[in-house]
Amino acid sequence: MPDALPVADLADRVLAGDRRALAQAITLVESTRPDHRAQAESLLATVLPHTGKGVRVGISGVPGVGKSTFIEAFGLHVIGQGHKVAVLAIDPTSQRTGGSILGDKTRMEMLSRDTRAFIRPSPAGATLGGVARRTREAMLLVEAAGFGVVIIETVGVGQSETAVADMVDLFLLLLPPAGGDELQGIKKGIVELADMIVVNKADGDLANAARHAVAEYRHALALLRPANASWRVPVLSCSALNNAGIDGVWDSIGDYRRILDDSGDIDRRRADQARAWMWNEIRENLLSAFQADGAVRAELPGLEAATAAGAITPGAAARRLLDLFRRV
Amino acid sequence: MPDALPVADLADRVLAGDRRALAQAITLVESTRPDHRAQAESLLATVLPHTGKGVRVGISGVPGVGKSTFIEAFGLHVIGQGHKVAVLAIDPTSQRTGGSILGDKTRMEMLSRDTRAFIRPSPAGATLGGVARRTREAMLLVEAAGFGVVIIETVGVGQSETAVADMVDLFLLLLPPAGGDELQGIKKGIVELADMIVVNKADGDLANAARHAVAEYRHALALLRPANASWRVPVLSCSALNNAGIDGVWDSIGDYRRILDDSGDIDRRRADQARAWMWNEIRENLLSAFQADGAVRAELPGLEAATAAGAITPGAAARRLLDLFRRV
Repeated sequence: MPDALPVADLADRVLAGDRRALAQAITLVESTRPDHRAQAESLLATVLPHTGKGVRVGISGVPGVGKSTFIEAFGLHVIGQGHKVAVLAIDPTSQRTGGSILGDKTRMEMLSRDTRAFIRPSPAGATLGGVARRTREAMLLVEAAGFGVVIIETVGVGQSETAVADMVDLFLLLLPPAGGDELQGIKKGIVELADMIVVNKADGDLANAARHAVAEYRHALALLRPANASWRVPVLSCSALNNAGIDGVWDSIGDYRRILDDSGDIDRRRADQARAWMWNEIRENLLSAFQADGAVRAELPGLEAATAAGAITPGAAARRLLDLFRRV
Repeated sequence: MPDALPVADLADRVLAGDRRALAQAITLVESTRPDHRAQAESLLATVLPHTGKGVRVGISGVPGVGKSTFIEAFGLHVIGQGHKVAVLAIDPTSQRTGGSILGDKTRMEMLSRDTRAFIRPSPAGATLGGVARRTREAMLLVEAAGFGVVIIETVGVGQSETAVADMVDLFLLLLPPAGGDELQGIKKGIVELADMIVVNKADGDLANAARHAVAEYRHALALLRPANASWRVPVLSCSALNNAGIDGVWDSIGDYRRILDDSGDIDRRRADQARAWMWNEIRENLLSAFQADGAVRAELPGLEAATAAGAITPGAAARRLLDLFRRV
């Protein structure tokens, strides 16, 4: 498929907003074939000047919080405001589970039928770094194709939230209307990544619990230093099911963009993200080369086990392995 | 100084508890000279079987929380219980500030005069990784010299708390008797590293505020999932000034050790730490070699700036630099 069109033609069609070309282009950046990688980089270089004009929103939440319902309601609202919206995903477990996230066709049914929306499941991949890189590149492609609002969804497994927070303008954490002990299931550090917290399911019997949860989160957030001096993390509530409060979330995202645009923080955040992404790629590639090295692979299991057992210092084990690597 | 004794003699004297030899041994592991490094690794290999028998406690807290007063009161209490205590430090800023941490001779005056205590300031170093490695190795040396309780202090700057948490059995966070907005100065993620929280200055006019702070922290902690299933992070209070509540802190550390010894978690934690330390050394050395490469250095500033400006994708910039590195 990616071979069907020369890269320049593919780029033109992506920039014209052609959905099939966009899907092909994403398949190309997801490919691990070296010749595809070279084409992908050429494609990305061509479209790069046409990216980054919209808003990038990361959304995470524990299973059962109603994430799909929220994204559908949110996406439809955003479309109603005259925007085109793309939904991408990061799920480092999708290879193992066969793609739980966004793979289910019954999810976001209305949104997926709308031509102003583009939904793409998580790429498969062995490492979070690899999955995240492909999602980042897909984000550039959907932006080039004219989707001004990009939503990156994460399943909330492993370090995927950090990866998402590192590629978006705003990280939105969706929480259930529960408090105290029930909230202990939320992964360490996630609350602190959030630029916005939204308590979903503020409806019916849970309306009261949602109100309490909002108060509890505001209290807890007071214990954390804000990441950004010009923005105080808001705690909102909504009912995605009843389509209530979704407009408030979108308005708050608009406030956020205006404030961070005015302060220049959004440009700094994106520049920092790009730089960090470059260094991550470098580190990962260096480590891959090290781990693929024959001499290293022969000695690694023994030295790692000896280190864990306290039979050799970590520093000495590292030096032996590095000496083996450099010798080759 | 480190040249004064052959490594085997130095090891013998360290194991015999000789303080001067211990100080020399630490100076040796702190040295950056390649021949010293080889000697240091030989020394560490010799003493390694005699390490790891005691308890390793990390202590962090914001400036003004009374950390020195606490460590002195705590150290004297531990000595009174029949233990020998060593206090080491990690301060990645010490090179710049001339060694603020533990450098002041008036700090911990009583503890520093006691022969059952050994206090060593933070090693200087340009990178946190380098500083942390030397402190880790110093920890092994003081353990070999018979100090059963090792305290690693951090100034709470940069990522130093994570480095400390990654080398101790228990990470104790010392907090002031303040609540709400005043607590916003606490760095993101620090509370979540803590195995134990102690509110200091629970005395005089602040006794009531300390009680409130304890309640607030217990409440906030309920929102975080515990790192360890067999241990619930306690929130205690003390007055280091009045020497009140220090025994409770030590008793709680004893409980922690017993519970984690019984579950085998302490062995797993140390094995994980050693493995992670080995990989950190490998990653840092690979990156250093990359950054020191002539061809990389020539192109790096331009490519990094272009990446930050959005003129080239991070992936393409990384690949160009990696190609340059591999070619050499």
